Amino acid sequence: MDSRTIGILGGGQLGRMIVEAANRLNIKTVILDAPNSPAKQINATVQHIDGSFAVPADIEKIAKLCDVLTVEIEHVNVPTLKKLAKENPNLKIYPSPETIELIQDKYTQKLHLIKNGISVAQSVDIPEANEQSLCEVGEKLGFPYVLKSRTLAYDGRGNFVVEKKESIPDALEALANRPLYAEKFAPFVKELAVMIVRSIDGTVYSYPTVETIHQDNICHLCYAPARVPDTIQLKAQILAESAIKSFPGCGIFGVEMFYLEDGELLINEIAPRPHNSGHYTIDACVTSQFEAHVRAVLDLPMPNNFTSFSTSNTNAIMLNVLGDQNIKNKELETCKRALETPGASVYLYGKESRPKRKLGHINIIGSSMDECERRLEYILNEKPLPVPNTSTTTKPLVGVIMGSDSDLPVMNAACNILKNFEVPFEVTIVSAHRTPHRMSKYAIQASQRGIKVIIAGAGGAAHLPGMVAAMTPLPVIGVPVKGSSLDGVDSLHSIVQMPRGIPVATVAINNSTNAALLAIRILGCSDNKLFNKMSQFLLKQEEEVLEKAAKLETIGYQEYLDSMK
Amino acid sequence: MDSRTIGILGGGQLGRMIVEAANRLNIKTVILDAPNSPAKQINATVQHIDGSFAVPADIEKIAKLCDVLTVEIEHVNVPTLKKLAKENPNLKIYPSPETIELIQDKYTQKLHLIKNGISVAQSVDIPEANEQSLCEVGEKLGFPYVLKSRTLAYDGRGNFVVEKKESIPDALEALANRPLYAEKFAPFVKELAVMIVRSIDGTVYSYPTVETIHQDNICHLCYAPARVPDTIQLKAQILAESAIKSFPGCGIFGVEMFYLEDGELLINEIAPRPHNSGHYTIDACVTSQFEAHVRAVLDLPMPNNFTSFSTSNTNAIMLNVLGDQNIKNKELETCKRALETPGASVYLYGKESRPKRKLGHINIIGSSMDECERRLEYILNEKPLPVPNTSTTTKPLVGVIMGSDSDLPVMNAACNILKNFEVPFEVTIVSAHRTPHRMSKYAIQASQRGIKVIIAGAGGAAHLPGMVAAMTPLPVIGVPVKGSSLDGVDSLHSIVQMPRGIPVATVAINNSTNAALLAIRILGCSDNKLFNKMSQFLLKQEEEVLEKAAKLETIGYQEYLDSMK
Repeated sequence: MDSRTIGILGGGQLGRMIVEAANRLNIKTVILDAPNSPAKQINATVQHIDGSFAVPADIEKIAKLCDVLTVEIEHVNVPTLKKLAKENPNLKIYPSPETIELIQDKYTQKLHLIKNGISVAQSVDIPEANEQSLCEVGEKLGFPYVLKSRTLAYDGRGNFVVEKKESIPDALEALANRPLYAEKFAPFVKELAVMIVRSIDGTVYSYPTVETIHQDNICHLCYAPARVPDTIQLKAQILAESAIKSFPGCGIFGVEMFYLEDGELLINEIAPRPHNSGHYTIDACVTSQFEAHVRAVLDLPMPNNFTSFSTSNTNAIMLNVLGDQNIKNKELETCKRALETPGASVYLYGKESRPKRKLGHINIIGSSMDECERRLEYILNEKPLPVPNTSTTTKPLVGVIMGSDSDLPVMNAACNILKNFEVPFEVTIVSAHRTPHRMSKYAIQASQRGIKVIIAGAGGAAHLPGMVAAMTPLPVIGVPVKGSSLDGVDSLHSIVQMPRGIPVATVAINNSTNAALLAIRILGCSDNKLFNKMSQFLLKQEEEVLEKAAKLETIGYQEYLDSMK
Repeated sequence: MDSRTIGILGGGQLGRMIVEAANRLNIKTVILDAPNSPAKQINATVQHIDGSFAVPADIEKIAKLCDVLTVEIEHVNVPTLKKLAKENPNLKIYPSPETIELIQDKYTQKLHLIKNGISVAQSVDIPEANEQSLCEVGEKLGFPYVLKSRTLAYDGRGNFVVEKKESIPDALEALANRPLYAEKFAPFVKELAVMIVRSIDGTVYSYPTVETIHQDNICHLCYAPARVPDTIQLKAQILAESAIKSFPGCGIFGVEMFYLEDGELLINEIAPRPHNSGHYTIDACVTSQFEAHVRAVLDLPMPNNFTSFSTSNTNAIMLNVLGDQNIKNKELETCKRALETPGASVYLYGKESRPKRKLGHINIIGSSMDECERRLEYILNEKPLPVPNTSTTTKPLVGVIMGSDSDLPVMNAACNILKNFEVPFEVTIVSAHRTPHRMSKYAIQASQRGIKVIIAGAGGAAHLPGMVAAMTPLPVIGVPVKGSSLDGVDSLHSIVQMPRGIPVATVAINNSTNAALLAIRILGCSDNKLFNKMSQFLLKQEEEVLEKAAKLETIGYQEYLDSMK
């Protein structure tokens, strides 16, 4: 796809997944890291450099082999990168050394963001750490506050929460000999993250906002999209975009942020490279964060929406696979359960199992977060999947309910249509007036159980369809059932004349056939098979009438009429 | 994931993609093929064997290095595999040597399928090929018939269509020195293919039925799912499953078949390995054909549905990237356009560009086949994408139509709701009685244009909603518009009382607000964002009423009433 070679400083799992993306595009890569590091394992070139991204001479060696130099880790030797950039203008270094330098030192990173008007937690520099200076910080920021190492911190190492004045000695011991700064404690309700790709011309593309859940300061789970209101998702993307616009150079960036109780968003920190919170993109998005990085640093095309979810109903959970604390390789049992789980994919990094080491991750995809969570429950806790080893299509998609068993002869036609179209459905009695609590429960739980459309039949005062519609965001189809008086017009008006705000899709009196056909049309909006089946059904109806017309024309109306008797 | 090593006979693109899948699972692979072959490039082990899968000594060398031996090509030396299987019962060979042997010789393959009751084209053996014997074949099968090499045929090489008696000398020359057999010409309308995974215990899992389009006997395009009726798709899967159940061993199999004019399906040929017609699975299915193969030969878990499309609205087209006929690497221009295309992913195989050589493939994913085809048009012919470089969400999803501009004051509310929910929509006038042809065109084309729901407002006789519903499989929502007489009950009854077979989702008189809210609930069935927005809307409505209730309770009914004046 491109004849240039990308050199990567660092050959861990992030480098490995960059190499995988580059391999797919025939793009040559060469790695600087220890021999047989994860990224080197999947690239058979003999040109790899054995060494370290912190050693100037090693960086100079790899620079000679490549056209573009990039990183999978920010703790690289920046002065060497700056020197190389100066000496060899043909060598592209992305992200730019200046960006890496700004981000490497977390306090400098904070100052840079503040200068650019980006919301971050209030921070103070600590040039000399001792009991007195940390006490003064406490007076300024309040307790608890977070004491952080300015450099070389990751997965919680280099952070210490100073709960109260008395914790200061422990803090000083834990972070001894590190350059420090302090941050006001952010009372967050969730941690969010957004991956951003920045092109060489400075355009930024945002992946969906995700929610990360940490255990012992290490990323444990990542929910995509984040389980926060849409506006917050959008705000997080805008904040992340603004932040990355302020850094020179290009490539992929991970932006971690806090979502506070009051709805505010604060940037926690930025990674100038692929990020653990973006691993879900491999399965959930059109283009993975790794390919996006390759495209960015080589200036390959980046169409709009290439960072979006693959389909409108994609949901994902990423689970990190860490080395078991006690038994080597025991974590593979989790991976095995993932292989048994529909919608789950396993990624292992070619690393030796060691306690708490990041050895791989599992991506779980589903058409709802609920489905993903059930699958996660099986993988984590062996909780059986709701319908183990059977097709997911047997989970009911349509709920057929009626106010009374006397409505069943009318609603029966709906059930037959759904059966003929092979749409999984459930049927039960829910009375608005005689079982009001059951009705509420049914309406509220329907969507959680995977129901997509509710068909409700009712006669007389016929409150069921409208009341159910009032308690669910699902589409509700109402079938007016003809009672002993008023010819069903009472039910029709009661069902159709809903107030503004709560629609009921009303069909003709007693015509539950049409209710089922409408439910199938609704499901067909996102299911091609059903859409095609409905097209065929319409054609067949047409053919049937045309056949009758031909017969009528052939045998004449009189004989036809006789044959109908 | 598994400590066993897989040895692969052949290191072309199929082997490469098996290695990629194995790498993700930390499964060791070792390749027998020429140095630097595509599969070797992405596996840095030094254990690879340089040599050929046709040379017994080379096969014996690789067998010593692995626990499971598999193939990416069927033209391997079977006697050596049989010998190895006998000598070393610990070495697993999948697919089994017997299966490879049966499939290697296409005539033996045919006889095996016939013996197992599988539909294939009528075939006759040609022990000695000469003008007379080929003439006799023509008399038996009729002209045209297909003369085929029993062995070592691929991509059309080794096939010759004998149009008439006079073509026989050319046929003899083209296929000189090959073992031959003849097949009755199958008057097919489409070529279909199904990938099947067979587990060690003999269970078979079927991928979706696809349609392949060949150019110069080489696979050019693959449509997934195949553009044939559902029943044919299902029949094709069942036929493929039955065929693969008849072969011992396990692994992935490609089953190619003909779909004849009369609806019959005939198996053309079977490949005991990953297949070009299964490349779409990398992006379109939960698990790719390559990972499925790895799982099968190692007896790793294969959950139900792991071979299904990722989501219910996934559609895919695969385009092979062949070396340009005239200019080396010119085919990369096609790949570059694919990178520019939303939903497209490029896979290159690390091979040198040579005319017509399979160098890579492009997977195009879309939520409809129409969308995939438009993207393909851009990639192949630079035909601009309909809405280039803008979000796909701006494509209208809801069509708001009305019989007359006098309905606009009523329908206006629907537009405002759709705007507030940020659902892309279009508005126009379509009159059933005054523009009947425009109405037909609108109804028929709506789904092709990506419209998912139609809202139709009409007054009086109000035929528009029902007529549109009669001509589209989309859900149609009808809004009865109140006219100058009968208070809108005329429109209501005309819209709601549709005959069985054609549903119209009817809402209250003049209540286009509810029509829009219903449209959003329908879209919300497959769009989580909209589903959540609708939940929030219901909450907000509830809060508003609760606030009013609180106010009424606080200030009393009299003052409240006064404040309403």
